[in-house]
Amino acid sequence: MKMTRLSLLAGLTLAALAGTSWALAPDSGETLADLVEVQKYGRAIHIMAMLMVGFGFLMVFVKRYGRSAVTATYLLVSLAIPVYFLKDKLGLLGAPNADIDSLILAEFAAASLLICAGAVLGRLKMNQYLLLGLLFVPCYAAGEWIVLRGGLGLIPAGHVIDTGGSIVIHAFGALFGLAAMLSLTPPRHFAASIQSDATSDRFSMVGSMVLWVFWPSFCAALVAPAEVPKTAVNVILALCASTLATYGASLFLRRKLAIADIANAALAGGVAIGSACDKASPGAAFVIGLLAGGLSTFGFAVIQPRLQSLLKKTDTCGVLYLHGLPGLLGSVAALFSVAGINKGAQLAGIAVAACIALVSGLVAGKIVSVLGARTAPYEDAEEFEIDDRGEGVPAWVKVERVLEK
Amino acid sequence: MKMTRLSLLAGLTLAALAGTSWALAPDSGETLADLVEVQKYGRAIHIMAMLMVGFGFLMVFVKRYGRSAVTATYLLVSLAIPVYFLKDKLGLLGAPNADIDSLILAEFAAASLLICAGAVLGRLKMNQYLLLGLLFVPCYAAGEWIVLRGGLGLIPAGHVIDTGGSIVIHAFGALFGLAAMLSLTPPRHFAASIQSDATSDRFSMVGSMVLWVFWPSFCAALVAPAEVPKTAVNVILALCASTLATYGASLFLRRKLAIADIANAALAGGVAIGSACDKASPGAAFVIGLLAGGLSTFGFAVIQPRLQSLLKKTDTCGVLYLHGLPGLLGSVAALFSVAGINKGAQLAGIAVAACIALVSGLVAGKIVSVLGARTAPYEDAEEFEIDDRGEGVPAWVKVERVLEK
Amino acid sequence: MKMTRLSLLAGLTLAALAGTSWALAPDSGETLADLVEVQKYGRAIHIMAMLMVGFGFLMVFVKRYGRSAVTATYLLVSLAIPVYFLKDKLGLLGAPNADIDSLILAEFAAASLLICAGAVLGRLKMNQYLLLGLLFVPCYAAGEWIVLRGGLGLIPAGHVIDTGGSIVIHAFGALFGLAAMLSLTPPRHFAASIQSDATSDRFSMVGSMVLWVFWPSFCAALVAPAEVPKTAVNVILALCASTLATYGASLFLRRKLAIADIANAALAGGVAIGSACDKASPGAAFVIGLLAGGLSTFGFAVIQPRLQSLLKKTDTCGVLYLHGLPGLLGSVAALFSVAGINKGAQLAGIAVAACIALVSGLVAGKIVSVLGARTAPYEDAEEFEIDDRGEGVPAWVKVERVLEK
Repeated sequence: MKMTRLSLLAGLTLAALAGTSWALAPDSGETLADLVEVQKYGRAIHIMAMLMVGFGFLMVFVKRYGRSAVTATYLLVSLAIPVYFLKDKLGLLGAPNADIDSLILAEFAAASLLICAGAVLGRLKMNQYLLLGLLFVPCYAAGEWIVLRGGLGLIPAGHVIDTGGSIVIHAFGALFGLAAMLSLTPPRHFAASIQSDATSDRFSMVGSMVLWVFWPSFCAALVAPAEVPKTAVNVILALCASTLATYGASLFLRRKLAIADIANAALAGGVAIGSACDKASPGAAFVIGLLAGGLSTFGFAVIQPRLQSLLKKTDTCGVLYLHGLPGLLGSVAALFSVAGINKGAQLAGIAVAACIALVSGLVAGKIVSVLGARTAPYEDAEEFEIDDRGEGVPAWVKVERVLEK
Repeated sequence: MKMTRLSLLAGLTLAALAGTSWALAPDSGETLADLVEVQKYGRAIHIMAMLMVGFGFLMVFVKRYGRSAVTATYLLVSLAIPVYFLKDKLGLLGAPNADIDSLILAEFAAASLLICAGAVLGRLKMNQYLLLGLLFVPCYAAGEWIVLRGGLGLIPAGHVIDTGGSIVIHAFGALFGLAAMLSLTPPRHFAASIQSDATSDRFSMVGSMVLWVFWPSFCAALVAPAEVPKTAVNVILALCASTLATYGASLFLRRKLAIADIANAALAGGVAIGSACDKASPGAAFVIGLLAGGLSTFGFAVIQPRLQSLLKKTDTCGVLYLHGLPGLLGSVAALFSVAGINKGAQLAGIAVAACIALVSGLVAGKIVSVLGARTAPYEDAEEFEIDDRGEGVPAWVKVERVLEK
Repeated sequence: MKMTRLSLLAGLTLAALAGTSWALAPDSGETLADLVEVQKYGRAIHIMAMLMVGFGFLMVFVKRYGRSAVTATYLLVSLAIPVYFLKDKLGLLGAPNADIDSLILAEFAAASLLICAGAVLGRLKMNQYLLLGLLFVPCYAAGEWIVLRGGLGLIPAGHVIDTGGSIVIHAFGALFGLAAMLSLTPPRHFAASIQSDATSDRFSMVGSMVLWVFWPSFCAALVAPAEVPKTAVNVILALCASTLATYGASLFLRRKLAIADIANAALAGGVAIGSACDKASPGAAFVIGLLAGGLSTFGFAVIQPRLQSLLKKTDTCGVLYLHGLPGLLGSVAALFSVAGINKGAQLAGIAVAACIALVSGLVAGKIVSVLGARTAPYEDAEEFEIDDRGEGVPAWVKVERVLEK
């Protein structure tokens, strides 16, 4: 740092002596490196839009649980980011990072937590979501450290290819959530009790589209500037492919389209291209997207109803089909689409991430269930001030009440 | 400018000779040119938000067609981008571009396609939208090539002023769509059958606002860094002006405001400033915006009902009034607001674009009608799994059905 | 890596010696300073998203006033930006700024105006909102000039610490709006007449989340590139803290959560960190956020009903509790969290801003009331073409009417 600044000063002095006022180092003295950080900041804001508006509203498809779903999103993000940021700055499980890198890694942790929470959406109270988050973040950080950064010496740092987090973010979050759901919820089949309507479906599509649009920034967040264009093109091609494949598969498997397929499976290309996003060719990215869209739709249309009736348990948002299977697909697809990949390390990374997620998820679910476990899903009215017709209590009625007291 | 570059070179030479490692070339070796591309990437993402959330939800004003409108948006964007990108990379109709430029040009094609689809919204099935897209993209690419890049040798490359696409994106898409609508739909007046409600109106305003907010990035997408500030100011002033003019004109022409005017005509300033966005003065931009807002509102309030009753055909989203007329206005306004413009080339460009759009639109409409033509508008229920009350079929009911089979 | 740097230096030297145009100064001749402006442009667009989608939809919690609230937002932004921009370019109340700086300052004025309008939302007609805006912008510009730029020689320029506008944007707008409300609306208690429902609550949460997500760009808009990362981290930590504090305080004070608390008070951390956003430590930012969230929720849950029943007047959006009190808290918190702050100047700045806001607000309210003052809130139907069921009048019905004439 000292040296860099000194050498910069030297250079600037020389330039100044040469009698120039120069454009590359204006008065405020910013450098190219500063601008690179500000560009990363721009991508960090895009990810924040995905976390809040994207994940938040994608979960609003449940008609009577909209307020709870967005509030849970608010709380989980607000919990995960400071906790991970603190971990990073304290240098736990890896050396501390610069501010924006640290922020982006914290956002990745929050994304994985939201995926995890999608599996148990509607079966937890707000304080249980927070407890789940507190248990999740350390496990996530451990997984990331072991799989990507050489933690415990299991896998050499940098050998697992997972730039956009197919493994450590998507598959990890989904498997943790599924394990927590299994150990948390009593066996019961929630018959006909979760409904969507035209309005909640449209909110859900707002969330889906926000995720789609900003996904390239998620994958390219920490990529070097020169690699951003290639990465962006790959991610967008994968998403286009999965959207088209979802339309075809939904029509083929159900005969009519399901809006839930469109809102969810269309995103599977983004999940699956994560691992190889900065290294695959555009053609490979398109094929990965096609496969992911088809697999995800097959999951929602065919696997989900069978698995639910088998387990008598419900993965509320279908995270297995949007994040779990496409994440695993993407991590394996990297074996074929990334030149010079260390196949052993990649497979070991997948296996280790899955094990950590499943074991820690089972334990976390048991712990969370200490605060209560429900057979029927929650509705907004249980934790929010709303009247019988589902309307918010007007402020003016509350005035009356206050005065009566 | 010369002096700056010379002094820059002098400074760099001195610094280099001093043997320092310096901040302008950090370890990862990125260059100013890399950062310029990443900045373009940021604008490309803004355009993606316009395509999906903007166009997608602006079309959701139709009450019983919300799922279909957003799904059609998803499919059309996912089709147009890879098709145009492939065309560009293969070097068809012009030399290939760098990744981000190619992506932005593909987004422009998708925008024009969505405008076109707005004219026939609600009268096509999903597979017909896709066929329309497949027919549209090559025609669009031909129009862009001939008008802007000297294709066929008709107009010298670079002589038509159309930075933000008033002609080749907005007017082209609108005229193609109108021609397709004329040849596609049987003559019939859809009496009182398309309704909006308070909820769909608000979704529509989300779409409108997203378009408004990101419009400067659309116009400045491919502009050189030094011209971005001026372009952004011009676009924002034109949008402010058209929003104010729309309020005045809607009140004057109807006595009460129509939310459809506000949601649509407020954007006309963005359409009309397209041609001259990086060259006009701020004052001229404001005036262009005022005229566009007034013209567009006049179109929606006065021309639309008369034209519909005359033709017995419906331009569902009123693309003639939001994109067609304001686009033509903007292309002509460039004649007065851009110094040194080649007036003959500009007028030839407008005429050629309009001809290509109308002829190819008529043919495309005929082809699409082979898959069926409707007199009554479609509703969500025809292509989506929803029950009688417009509610999505809950996953759990589907479980029952699967088990019964 | 070493090699890269060496070869880069060699290349740079050779290139410089050869007198060529090279990658750091590509053909189009852009400079680092140009790129800094384009990065500011990116943040300006984020702020525009906050103004439109954020403020616009945060106000849509009122069930029967959605169209009016978003239209008012459109009009106020479209009025404030050109008016402030013109003032700036004319060099009134301070020297003119470069294009993007001028645009960002105009957006700040628009933000403060929207806050002000929140206090009287639903009690003005559209033309009254516009008149309020015309009166507000000059007062705002005077306040900014006197408090931050040494206007009238009252406070030396640059001595008041208010980077993100806790004082001159948030507190000023809120106090102006409250004063206008007091002098504008006749004393009356609007019993049970403003209602929200599940749909309007969810729209309101879209607005809240958009504000949350882009808030770092609001605070960092004019900050030097090297300070952007630190500023962003501080703002995000403050927002996380206020979101968590809001949950706790809402549950504690009401026993059940109110979605209005979540949608509003969660943002108080952004308001309060404004003054010190680029100078506080991350720990201080978190604490400021916690305090702001608690204070704001206390305002909504406890102060608001008592104050309303006392005054018989209604601060529709509760701007005192979201912007007024947290803004004042933040301006005072800077005294403790910013090293070397001039405490006298800071306190003087707060006092002067508050005085200007209150006095000019009272006068503005009286002037606006000349166009009419209402006891009952307005509904969409009074200014918009909608039928009895709150549905938009279909275009096709209008066709019939036109033909009948």
